[in-house]
Amino acid sequence: MSTVKRHKVILDEMEMPTRWYNILHDLPTPPPPYLHPGTGQPVGPEDLTPLFPMDLIAQEMATQQYVDIPPEVLDVYRLWRPSPLFRAHRLEAALKTPARIYYKYEGVSPAGSHKTNTSVPQAFYNAKAGITKLTTETGAGQWGTALAFACAQFGVECEVWQVRASYDGKPYRRIMIETFGGSIHPSPSELTAAGRAILAEHPDSPGSLGIAISEAVEVAAQSPETNYALGSVLNHVLMHQTIIGEEALRQFAKIDDTPDLVVGCTGGGSNFAGLAFPFLREKLAGRINPVLRGAEPASCPSLTQGVYAYDFGDTAGMTPLMKMHTLGHDFIPDPIHAGGLRYHGMSPLLSHVYELGLIEAVAHRQRECFAAGVLFARSEGIVPAPEATHALAEVVDEARRCAETGQEKAILVSLSGHGHLDLPAYGAYLDGSMSDHAYEESEIRDAVAEALTRLPSIPG
Amino acid sequence: MSTVKRHKVILDEMEMPTRWYNILHDLPTPPPPYLHPGTGQPVGPEDLTPLFPMDLIAQEMATQQYVDIPPEVLDVYRLWRPSPLFRAHRLEAALKTPARIYYKYEGVSPAGSHKTNTSVPQAFYNAKAGITKLTTETGAGQWGTALAFACAQFGVECEVWQVRASYDGKPYRRIMIETFGGSIHPSPSELTAAGRAILAEHPDSPGSLGIAISEAVEVAAQSPETNYALGSVLNHVLMHQTIIGEEALRQFAKIDDTPDLVVGCTGGGSNFAGLAFPFLREKLAGRINPVLRGAEPASCPSLTQGVYAYDFGDTAGMTPLMKMHTLGHDFIPDPIHAGGLRYHGMSPLLSHVYELGLIEAVAHRQRECFAAGVLFARSEGIVPAPEATHALAEVVDEARRCAETGQEKAILVSLSGHGHLDLPAYGAYLDGSMSDHAYEESEIRDAVAEALTRLPSIPG
Repeated sequence: MSTVKRHKVILDEMEMPTRWYNILHDLPTPPPPYLHPGTGQPVGPEDLTPLFPMDLIAQEMATQQYVDIPPEVLDVYRLWRPSPLFRAHRLEAALKTPARIYYKYEGVSPAGSHKTNTSVPQAFYNAKAGITKLTTETGAGQWGTALAFACAQFGVECEVWQVRASYDGKPYRRIMIETFGGSIHPSPSELTAAGRAILAEHPDSPGSLGIAISEAVEVAAQSPETNYALGSVLNHVLMHQTIIGEEALRQFAKIDDTPDLVVGCTGGGSNFAGLAFPFLREKLAGRINPVLRGAEPASCPSLTQGVYAYDFGDTAGMTPLMKMHTLGHDFIPDPIHAGGLRYHGMSPLLSHVYELGLIEAVAHRQRECFAAGVLFARSEGIVPAPEATHALAEVVDEARRCAETGQEKAILVSLSGHGHLDLPAYGAYLDGSMSDHAYEESEIRDAVAEALTRLPSIPG
Repeated sequence: MSTVKRHKVILDEMEMPTRWYNILHDLPTPPPPYLHPGTGQPVGPEDLTPLFPMDLIAQEMATQQYVDIPPEVLDVYRLWRPSPLFRAHRLEAALKTPARIYYKYEGVSPAGSHKTNTSVPQAFYNAKAGITKLTTETGAGQWGTALAFACAQFGVECEVWQVRASYDGKPYRRIMIETFGGSIHPSPSELTAAGRAILAEHPDSPGSLGIAISEAVEVAAQSPETNYALGSVLNHVLMHQTIIGEEALRQFAKIDDTPDLVVGCTGGGSNFAGLAFPFLREKLAGRINPVLRGAEPASCPSLTQGVYAYDFGDTAGMTPLMKMHTLGHDFIPDPIHAGGLRYHGMSPLLSHVYELGLIEAVAHRQRECFAAGVLFARSEGIVPAPEATHALAEVVDEARRCAETGQEKAILVSLSGHGHLDLPAYGAYLDGSMSDHAYEESEIRDAVAEALTRLPSIPG
């Protein structure tokens, strides 16, 4: 007879946190400001009003420790939140490790990932400001799905430009966005000057996130009732995601345990930061002492191989200059299946925290990530998103180290989403056709060095 | 400011029911026995041993009121159970109805549907009996996924024959089965005599459930260490699914409410029975008085237009004769997207309950089902499985009737699974290319009457 093991730590929805956490309040130094690319001067709220409502601009620049979550946002969050914290007994058994492995699962959300934690408040604040339409870009499609769902809750129109290669190759995501009521175009499109310019030169262009951003921003800038929404990177996005870590802290309190290691995947940084920042607050206050570790793809290693410098947030150079870990704004990563991690830069706030020595980073190759994903699926019954497999690869490594040393570490990992719409990637892994994008370290170093020669200079 | 509304009723996993409910104990008369097609005599346990382990055969014929769930099965159930009960506040608002709508959501399971409630015990009892491999058929793929996951938990090999048309057209399901460690073949295949016979005559055969069953059964019958598993229809399958209704009863007790109407979709009958039977026990005992209503596709209306007669469970006529509501074992329903509801018959046990007048049935057309599914997705954030949209179509109708009459009914609906792997069906609905399979009633009556001329005769 098997013994009774608890698999889940559940919070009642009435126990859900009602405030987001703003780590800027607790850092020893503030991050460097965003700079205007024309003047080299710090960007002010007025520079951001063409694209964002004042509530979100205020949150981007906020310094108070907590921001109340509006009741209307809490009401939507409660459709799926609090998200469950799982103890991975079956994965532990498969790894024969003495480590205790916990995962905080965000795949229960309407979009299947953590992205709805920020799309819902973004749609709410825009609706409150009288905005009737939001535009955005999406690559693999997680963010576009999350924004389409959120817009449906507040009666806001949602228009998405999806990178053409993904639009054609991942039709399920497109249909999910339409099911939630969003409209979607392949990018480049004939609908914008930016898109038409690209198509004139490259009629068969597969598109890129940089082009899709240009199209979404162009449309948003044309109408005072249309704004633009971004799914990661910015301070307010990371703050919205802290509900993940706030819930996890309450869940660990319920079982009287605390993690020795917190792991999350890092692309733009919002999933990892959302889990890790509340734990970092507790660490800075001396109450706990976990190691916080981001896991990134070896083919797009902005934290482990990038430089900390002012760079553009997009490929085309339309955004403010942001000091961040970057591989160079025109670095094109290999087309790995974890589309959400294929970003040349890293959240300026998370980059700053990394520079302060408060978090660690590691990089993993694609095939070891999918090996961890398959092991996880067979053990725990959840097929993880390709992005999340990077965090799982690090957990597997750490758990095996614990098996060697006998250390009974408690490991907490952020499982950012499910991989139901990414199953072709698992197919490629299982049939052996998946490339490892296994650059030699020297090769990627050379490619990054080359891209870094084109970092922008700061005027003034 | 919005008021604080509870969206979910959650049971802790330690509150999960530990017994399945066997409705045979409480029915006024037992259902007619299965008959041997050669002799016309009732089938005994020994007739079933080539395919099933004795524990499951005993459950198939059990008459006690409850069967304890083995601890090993409870431990796997706890990966996702108890499943949440939701109050659909946003759907109610969209429908402007005074009805209270609740849904019991089974899409949180590893396979994304209720099918794991029976695949896990089936794999467990087979492993306990020394069986090393299970074979099965799958159409759309929900059942094959559920069995592959369950087999991975108990170290049993899983071999699935998937209808060729689905295998080619729905590759995501195939990959999910492989991700869980199952092996899968398109059916008809060259691996069995049954498959080779079909291919010799029709090299391009798209396959059918009937053929796939033949292939899976043929392989299972060849080896004493290989058994066969079925995902619906049989008594023990329906009993395993009663954990859905047992949980729902406990969840309603927590909020001091009780449903006036319980709705579920009916294909083979296991999802609806799993929710409804525990409520029927309470109704038969005079403690509550809900209406219990199955919702089936208008294009495959076994309850609303079939006859109650002895028929084969499969197309090829290899199974025992079962008295059930049937459209005739060679009736081929239109290829609607709700693959799980395209079955010519209905669970003999549920058919018997229907004959006793204890449940109602309605039929819905495909486009009204998807309209309900899209409304549900935009309101509640879950894209329902095509099967589940049939139950939702009935809920929408009932809620609108309540809006007209002012009745404040409590409606409970079983949401059998999510539709992440069925998004192409939503695409067809949204772009207007979905056919309604909207036979005139007279047309389907004629088609059924024709198929019923070929009902088997009972020997002896």
